[in-house]
Amino acid sequence: MKRRDFLKNAAVTGAAGVSTAGLATPAISQGLREWRMVTTWPKNFPGLGTGAELLAKFIEQGSEGKLRIKVYGGGELVKPFDSLDAVRKGEVEMGHGTPYYWHGKIPAIAFLSAYPFGMTAQEQNAWIQYGGGQQLADEMYSELGCKFFVSGNSGVQMGGWFNKEINDLEAYRGLKMRIPGLGGEVIKAAGGEVINLPGSEILGALESGQIDATEWVGPYNDLAFGLYKKAKYYYYPGWHEPGTALDNFINLSEWEKLPADLKSVVEAANVAVNQLVLSEFVAKNNSSLRTLIKDHGVILKQFPKSVLSGFAGLSEQVVNDLASSDSLSRKVLDNIQNFRSEAVAWTSLSETTFTASRFLYSYNKR
Amino acid sequence: MKRRDFLKNAAVTGAAGVSTAGLATPAISQGLREWRMVTTWPKNFPGLGTGAELLAKFIEQGSEGKLRIKVYGGGELVKPFDSLDAVRKGEVEMGHGTPYYWHGKIPAIAFLSAYPFGMTAQEQNAWIQYGGGQQLADEMYSELGCKFFVSGNSGVQMGGWFNKEINDLEAYRGLKMRIPGLGGEVIKAAGGEVINLPGSEILGALESGQIDATEWVGPYNDLAFGLYKKAKYYYYPGWHEPGTALDNFINLSEWEKLPADLKSVVEAANVAVNQLVLSEFVAKNNSSLRTLIKDHGVILKQFPKSVLSGFAGLSEQVVNDLASSDSLSRKVLDNIQNFRSEAVAWTSLSETTFTASRFLYSYNKR
Repeated sequence: MKRRDFLKNAAVTGAAGVSTAGLATPAISQGLREWRMVTTWPKNFPGLGTGAELLAKFIEQGSEGKLRIKVYGGGELVKPFDSLDAVRKGEVEMGHGTPYYWHGKIPAIAFLSAYPFGMTAQEQNAWIQYGGGQQLADEMYSELGCKFFVSGNSGVQMGGWFNKEINDLEAYRGLKMRIPGLGGEVIKAAGGEVINLPGSEILGALESGQIDATEWVGPYNDLAFGLYKKAKYYYYPGWHEPGTALDNFINLSEWEKLPADLKSVVEAANVAVNQLVLSEFVAKNNSSLRTLIKDHGVILKQFPKSVLSGFAGLSEQVVNDLASSDSLSRKVLDNIQNFRSEAVAWTSLSETTFTASRFLYSYNKR
Repeated sequence: MKRRDFLKNAAVTGAAGVSTAGLATPAISQGLREWRMVTTWPKNFPGLGTGAELLAKFIEQGSEGKLRIKVYGGGELVKPFDSLDAVRKGEVEMGHGTPYYWHGKIPAIAFLSAYPFGMTAQEQNAWIQYGGGQQLADEMYSELGCKFFVSGNSGVQMGGWFNKEINDLEAYRGLKMRIPGLGGEVIKAAGGEVINLPGSEILGALESGQIDATEWVGPYNDLAFGLYKKAKYYYYPGWHEPGTALDNFINLSEWEKLPADLKSVVEAANVAVNQLVLSEFVAKNNSSLRTLIKDHGVILKQFPKSVLSGFAGLSEQVVNDLASSDSLSRKVLDNIQNFRSEAVAWTSLSETTFTASRFLYSYNKR
């Protein structure tokens, strides 16, 4: 992607967004369908917007052009956070975002993106695909008039951008931070003020003082937004989003009208995009992190253990409060926590033990 | 999959395999193609054989039946390790296995599966898809008359099954072990004798004393083969195969004859299978590990650090010797080691720091 194109598109997305009124339904003739996909991302934004484009490409090619999808960046047709409503109402046929953006409609839906101290991308995918997550997602999204597919994952995110050091939880008291989903609820519990914004509005909000701090994704994406221009300290790990899943949501009645072969094409395309988006993040995060540090003077810092412990305690409180007030949240939390406890045990033996052992291999660049 | 069907098929696969002579080329008419896929796995073997079936299903559905693929278990049409030759010669159109099975033809091809102390599944995928691995693979597979796709990953494997404790590298001296690829070369360097066998022959070989020890994949697969019946100690981590990629290889001239839309369907299907196979392993390994320990009395052990250090040194020696004797291996090794050093840096900040921090979250099953 050309950087110039992205910045131009990001600027478009930063605008207030046009009205959804008057969107025409596309004609369907001779078995050819033309669908529109609204996204919550700036058009062609690295990894996220490009993932939505890749989804459209795989569907169009796989269907031999019988299902064509035109992709709109956030704000081009509807405001980013209005995407799900536009799909639910049938104004457009599909959308691309991440489940916790719809947390205000169904609180438990946030667990489908990520949950604090929860699971890595590999584990989150395994839970959705082989651990019962898809069934719970279908239940929630069908209430919203949509079909759900997992459609990309960012991997472990970074903990956020700050202009002061975070030495204790007190540092969050009164802090105005952009942080969505359950992570945002934890920051509120720590005394912070949470202001949610789509990605394209973050840099401006830091500049104007509307927010003091933010998280977005990780080095690859945060570099693209230029967040280093307005914040100095870059903290890890992203305890609040250890493997954030993206969603592809499709108007349920349009979905049900698709013939079986097109349903299969859409399903396979989403799984493929799910894998490729994660690969792109893994490949690009490291070189971007080096650029942030070497070229832009960003100061990388690990959250102190006492801060992480504090967040862990608050996270348990937040998710337990949610589960106590809402039977669906209880059901989803029980399911995901049971899966998580199995996943933690296996990951400890496999990935964790392996990644520690590989430091014994003394290869260095020659 | 029914356990009974799997065992029946595994038995078939265990047979010597039929001759490849006289395989008829399937008729192509009216734009419909019928292809055959030979695999190195027992038919419908969990995660591996089922991944090959899923690939065939996605291709058939995505192409609306224009490209149908009949899947054969290892030994049904050709012996498992003859699969690539059968595809190269055009006796069948495609196959499914893992690159290091073709190590004898092109040594550097083993790096595409995994390399000792190398990369996790996420990192290996990122290298293949966004780090230059696909181009190197295309170069190697085209010499073998095939098109390459990555088509599944096991995640971090286990270190192997033994009937004695492994307290030092001396324990490997004279040990007859089934272990393929570069890991096998390391075991030879430690004084072991390496005997390669397809999965279906392992249990019999342990029983007859043809081998003393073996590795296969991990708990999900090793339980299915019943390896616990003939070995007592189960060691981790799988330093030799930290994220083993599977391959889908297609006869190059058949591939080139495919129209663009079918090429796109095959590509997307492979990416989708790549993701789903890994999810299946992640989801199923832990419950299988518990069954192995609780129901079958398997003794789980971590390799001592001194043994892992010894393997790390021998691994560097093995890969450097390979690179010194073969310019293609040098090129692949330099590429993958440069990518690995970046990946290690990012993984340390993200997955490793996160998975350590999540133990601060004190959730336990209620």
